[in-house]
Amino acid sequence: MQIGLIGLGKMGFNLALNLQRNGYDVVANDVNTDFVAKIEKEGIDTANSVAVLTEKLTERRVIWIMVPAGEIVDKVIFSLIPFLNKNDIVIDGGNSNFKDSKRRYKILKENGFCYLDCGTSGGTSGALNGACTMVGGDKEVFDYVAEVFENISVPNGSLYTGASGSGHYTKMVHNGIEYGMMQSIAEGFEVFEHSEFDIDFEKTAKLFNHGSVVRGWLMELTQNAFSKDPKLEGIKGVMHSSGEGKWTLEEALDLGVPTPVIALSIMMRYRSQMQDTFSGKVVAALRNEFGGHAVEKNE
Amino acid sequence: MQIGLIGLGKMGFNLALNLQRNGYDVVANDVNTDFVAKIEKEGIDTANSVAVLTEKLTERRVIWIMVPAGEIVDKVIFSLIPFLNKNDIVIDGGNSNFKDSKRRYKILKENGFCYLDCGTSGGTSGALNGACTMVGGDKEVFDYVAEVFENISVPNGSLYTGASGSGHYTKMVHNGIEYGMMQSIAEGFEVFEHSEFDIDFEKTAKLFNHGSVVRGWLMELTQNAFSKDPKLEGIKGVMHSSGEGKWTLEEALDLGVPTPVIALSIMMRYRSQMQDTFSGKVVAALRNEFGGHAVEKNE
Repeated sequence: MQIGLIGLGKMGFNLALNLQRNGYDVVANDVNTDFVAKIEKEGIDTANSVAVLTEKLTERRVIWIMVPAGEIVDKVIFSLIPFLNKNDIVIDGGNSNFKDSKRRYKILKENGFCYLDCGTSGGTSGALNGACTMVGGDKEVFDYVAEVFENISVPNGSLYTGASGSGHYTKMVHNGIEYGMMQSIAEGFEVFEHSEFDIDFEKTAKLFNHGSVVRGWLMELTQNAFSKDPKLEGIKGVMHSSGEGKWTLEEALDLGVPTPVIALSIMMRYRSQMQDTFSGKVVAALRNEFGGHAVEKNE
Repeated sequence: MQIGLIGLGKMGFNLALNLQRNGYDVVANDVNTDFVAKIEKEGIDTANSVAVLTEKLTERRVIWIMVPAGEIVDKVIFSLIPFLNKNDIVIDGGNSNFKDSKRRYKILKENGFCYLDCGTSGGTSGALNGACTMVGGDKEVFDYVAEVFENISVPNGSLYTGASGSGHYTKMVHNGIEYGMMQSIAEGFEVFEHSEFDIDFEKTAKLFNHGSVVRGWLMELTQNAFSKDPKLEGIKGVMHSSGEGKWTLEEALDLGVPTPVIALSIMMRYRSQMQDTFSGKVVAALRNEFGGHAVEKNE
């Protein structure tokens, strides 16, 4: 089976190799010609434009888009549309917002094309060796390419989640859960770091991975991190984010359901990006106003 | 090697079988004679009092206490003291507060006895088949019984954590992390439950356990729970707790470090135990006072 692949960043590049290993004829494309040259060296066929890519694919085409979420997905889709035949299948394997995926599905469907939204978890190593894929869209379309998802995922690591948008929705909530779990692990080690005891972080994380209740992949990654830098002295505690935690919180707000742990995980990320806070200044000023409590002055 | 075991509840009973399987000569005791009769049927030697228990043990005695945290631990220890010989080792394998463990260590040490605090994770199945043990106290004492901890734990599932109290401290923080992780998983499924999509909770949890970032034992237990009751219709969302999450938060407050996710996990447990809240009444009343917003009346 042929697969067109648009986007050869860290995820797309590894996915190309994963597809190739599983016997698929990949035709790869990226706006970055360096990435295209790099994948060619892996023996993967390439196309220097979307027009060439679609020309190289026969029968009912399957085109996997693996580009950063946002406008660029729309751009790729609109560049593809003139070259698509009826029933061709476009898959968005990136971290798109599920509302965008529903909109894109509708546009493509109205034009006779098929669209699947595929949330992909497991990081870059998963993309290469076996991912976790959650796929929304029309069941008939999913069934046509179900084997592709099964092959590039770990055993039992692929699921048809339902209607269009549900794949990216499931991935979004997965990431919200991930935020809270990471923050909880982090807070535990914050307590350890300030405690009266001389806790060995790496040994403790390793112990937690052997028979404890909190064992799991994130704790294994925690152990890995401490094995490289026992007290993480080489890095700053600045936590960036790429949107899916925020979307989970926005969805919770829209639904009117309480998700305080996910909310606070996100707030702690924002706080970590600030050297100082204006809210801190306000509280310090108020304590000074009503109680004469000392404030720390700016130099 | 002989091991005296006091406390034959769910954890102690399983630990007795675990020790027996590993070739230890267990002498078991519990105030509940039903528990004693039950363990006797497993071919384990018993003692109907602490006096008899200590009499049955020879050489440097090792006595493992597995009773609920709190005053009962002190009671057991004080009942033991008259029968102990110098250098006898008392192990508290329960969920004691680390401050109590430090105090008990000091009292026993001043009287020439040895004390280890052992945090035990992995639940009742772990106690039976291989636990995760984190042990604080004097290194020499730990070394004397290190093999016991290794044998009853999963491979790599035993760690000497350092000074007296550090075993229970490590277990306390482990549980704090557990609270936050559980609440985060739970909030994700709360969003799923209210979403516009028809998410299959069991299949989704199962998927998350195959290649995703949030895979781990708690997600496996989530999958198990949904496999038994797909929408958890048979149970109420009332979340009890046994103290260690609260202690982690109290410790964070004493240390002055922010742990909002662990804090909110605990608050959500308290909220779940209330039908209604007084704070809710206050806010509803205030909205009515300043804006004339409708309140929901009690019948």
